[in-house]
Amino acid sequence: MKNEYFKNSVGQVATRTYVIPEPESITFDCGKTLPHIQVAYETYGELNADRTNAILIVHALSGDAHAAGYHSPNDRKPGWWDNMIGPNKCFDTNRYCIVCSNILGGCKGTTGSNSLDPQTKKPYGMNFPVVSIRDMVKVQKKLIDFLGIQKILAVSGGSMGGMQVLQWAVDYPDRVAGVIPIATTATLSPLSIALNEVGRKAIMSDPNWNGGDYYDRTPPDAGLAIARMLGHITYLSDESMMEKFGRRLRDKEDYSYDFETEFEVESYLHYQGEAFTRRFDANTYLYVTKAMDYFDLSRETGALEKTFENVQAKFLIIAFSSDWLFPPYQSKEIARALRTCNKEVSYCELSSSYGHDAFLLEEKQQTLMITHFLQNLEEECEKE
Amino acid sequence: MKNEYFKNSVGQVATRTYVIPEPESITFDCGKTLPHIQVAYETYGELNADRTNAILIVHALSGDAHAAGYHSPNDRKPGWWDNMIGPNKCFDTNRYCIVCSNILGGCKGTTGSNSLDPQTKKPYGMNFPVVSIRDMVKVQKKLIDFLGIQKILAVSGGSMGGMQVLQWAVDYPDRVAGVIPIATTATLSPLSIALNEVGRKAIMSDPNWNGGDYYDRTPPDAGLAIARMLGHITYLSDESMMEKFGRRLRDKEDYSYDFETEFEVESYLHYQGEAFTRRFDANTYLYVTKAMDYFDLSRETGALEKTFENVQAKFLIIAFSSDWLFPPYQSKEIARALRTCNKEVSYCELSSSYGHDAFLLEEKQQTLMITHFLQNLEEECEKE
Repeated sequence: MKNEYFKNSVGQVATRTYVIPEPESITFDCGKTLPHIQVAYETYGELNADRTNAILIVHALSGDAHAAGYHSPNDRKPGWWDNMIGPNKCFDTNRYCIVCSNILGGCKGTTGSNSLDPQTKKPYGMNFPVVSIRDMVKVQKKLIDFLGIQKILAVSGGSMGGMQVLQWAVDYPDRVAGVIPIATTATLSPLSIALNEVGRKAIMSDPNWNGGDYYDRTPPDAGLAIARMLGHITYLSDESMMEKFGRRLRDKEDYSYDFETEFEVESYLHYQGEAFTRRFDANTYLYVTKAMDYFDLSRETGALEKTFENVQAKFLIIAFSSDWLFPPYQSKEIARALRTCNKEVSYCELSSSYGHDAFLLEEKQQTLMITHFLQNLEEECEKE
Repeated sequence: MKNEYFKNSVGQVATRTYVIPEPESITFDCGKTLPHIQVAYETYGELNADRTNAILIVHALSGDAHAAGYHSPNDRKPGWWDNMIGPNKCFDTNRYCIVCSNILGGCKGTTGSNSLDPQTKKPYGMNFPVVSIRDMVKVQKKLIDFLGIQKILAVSGGSMGGMQVLQWAVDYPDRVAGVIPIATTATLSPLSIALNEVGRKAIMSDPNWNGGDYYDRTPPDAGLAIARMLGHITYLSDESMMEKFGRRLRDKEDYSYDFETEFEVESYLHYQGEAFTRRFDANTYLYVTKAMDYFDLSRETGALEKTFENVQAKFLIIAFSSDWLFPPYQSKEIARALRTCNKEVSYCELSSSYGHDAFLLEEKQQTLMITHFLQNLEEECEKE
């Protein structure tokens, strides 16, 4: 039964860790450094002899290094992109070596605000340096160096993962042949900043947050759950919520005329919010949303086309029709800027009612686009 | 100077109150009754001899009876729809008698959860009956009866006001000649229910909420401010936020790499959230959003066209292109149902980047549509 379960999967996998040696440590955009940074990562498939078949997968806000497979035979759920990564899947582990690491500032094995500060022997809490998308990518680059990969075949990820993808293409132009940013943006919109700030306010207004110092006491679960509920709403669409929940009541036919959980959509959000508090750290939520807020690829150069001037990677940009968090026009803007400086770019708007979550759910449409793109990359890399 | 200020306005006005005599009191949809309900209302312009020139204005979530003019010569701001109501304005007070009342369950003079329960001599708090849109309209009908108005020329309002407008047309078909629902829906979507529930959770998770019993202590301002911040986001649009705030930082050029208020959009939301706590009651926010959640005109009949079967009023339905809280397709659905049962209906989608807030801001476009509609109504009423 378990074998059946694993059949279309990379099977049982384990998270490994790499610690960046202190002399090689990175300097954060904010100017700070940390003594040694641990990186949690997983790999699926084998590196070929030339080490030219590596694909780096980068995750979104609440993701982790566990992108595919199962950690134990009893795991109920596989990694977060298991429908896209595995034998004969989009990111085909018979063909490619897939690498995925938890982001800097994350709470899933890579150093972050819930990690122990070696100086105080207590969690960093709000003493952790503010992290940027570029900082996350600097750490990924250290991991790729450690793995002995000179040139990554492709970097891909959705949402905040897509931001890291773009940053890779800009910061390490000669280290990546192709990039696949999905459901993302080159510049976080004020709408997204605003939504992030509501989530942060919910956490920081929770008395249990206690200035971020809650690791030996009750954490700010109520605030974190509210932030997650709001997040979930932005990952869906008006249409998908109508399909999924409609106005159905939970376990009854008539209005109860009270303030208990009543509509199915409320019940879903309460569950998602509560479940999130069991697997995610509230301070991390603050840091990661702040990294997104700061993301603006045109900020330093004044124009996106200037930022992209030295890019060498080929681009496949994917957006989804019903995504209102990172609407297609934001992906089109990336494509426009790349074309302006004569870069190779394919832009594809996929039709989906799933909203922003489509990047996790629409594996068929994405697989069609991505497998062709990867094959072309391989052929061109062989020619070189 | 003050006179100049008042020139295009109805001038100084006062809120009056009417108490529904106990034998005439309403029964709430939830089955409960209240001994005597006070209604806060204002009127602008004069009723004609036949009392055929009355227009009822109904307000949205955070509104009140003070729709136009100033309460004192020192008032900094006029009523909430002053750009639409006044001499020679859309709702022309030289021509019509405008009536606006605070909703049942509101906290601005009409009986609600912050009113004193005559039995306990303490505020009702969460002992107040759950209110529906229909209950609000029942109370408005009592006021209209008291004012001696047999037939209202038109009922108009936006957002939750629009829901009351629709309920008027359905519940009192022979009492209203025309209705103008703006930026509204006949059925609250699961997306809106979800957003309302996040706001409610923020309030109810605030320890100061205390089960709704906070009137003699510190109120749940933090929770209410978060609810209002989220509300404000939904009233704007991606486009209008980009125009209004962009990614501008407040008072500085560089990122501060901390968690203080940094972007202008954050500063705006903090201000709006905080200001709201000074003028609004947290329990009222719970009750009014719940009334919206329950609003579904097709629930009892099974189909909107059945609900509209006995409607006699003429309809002018207005929606705004960038409104994602009550998108145009929801207004079109009302128009479609009305046409199916051969009712007179005009539907107009106005182009605006202001999002849901457009109903408060786009006075020119709305005035053009509404003045024609009102003139036609007058002419037809004269014929009768």
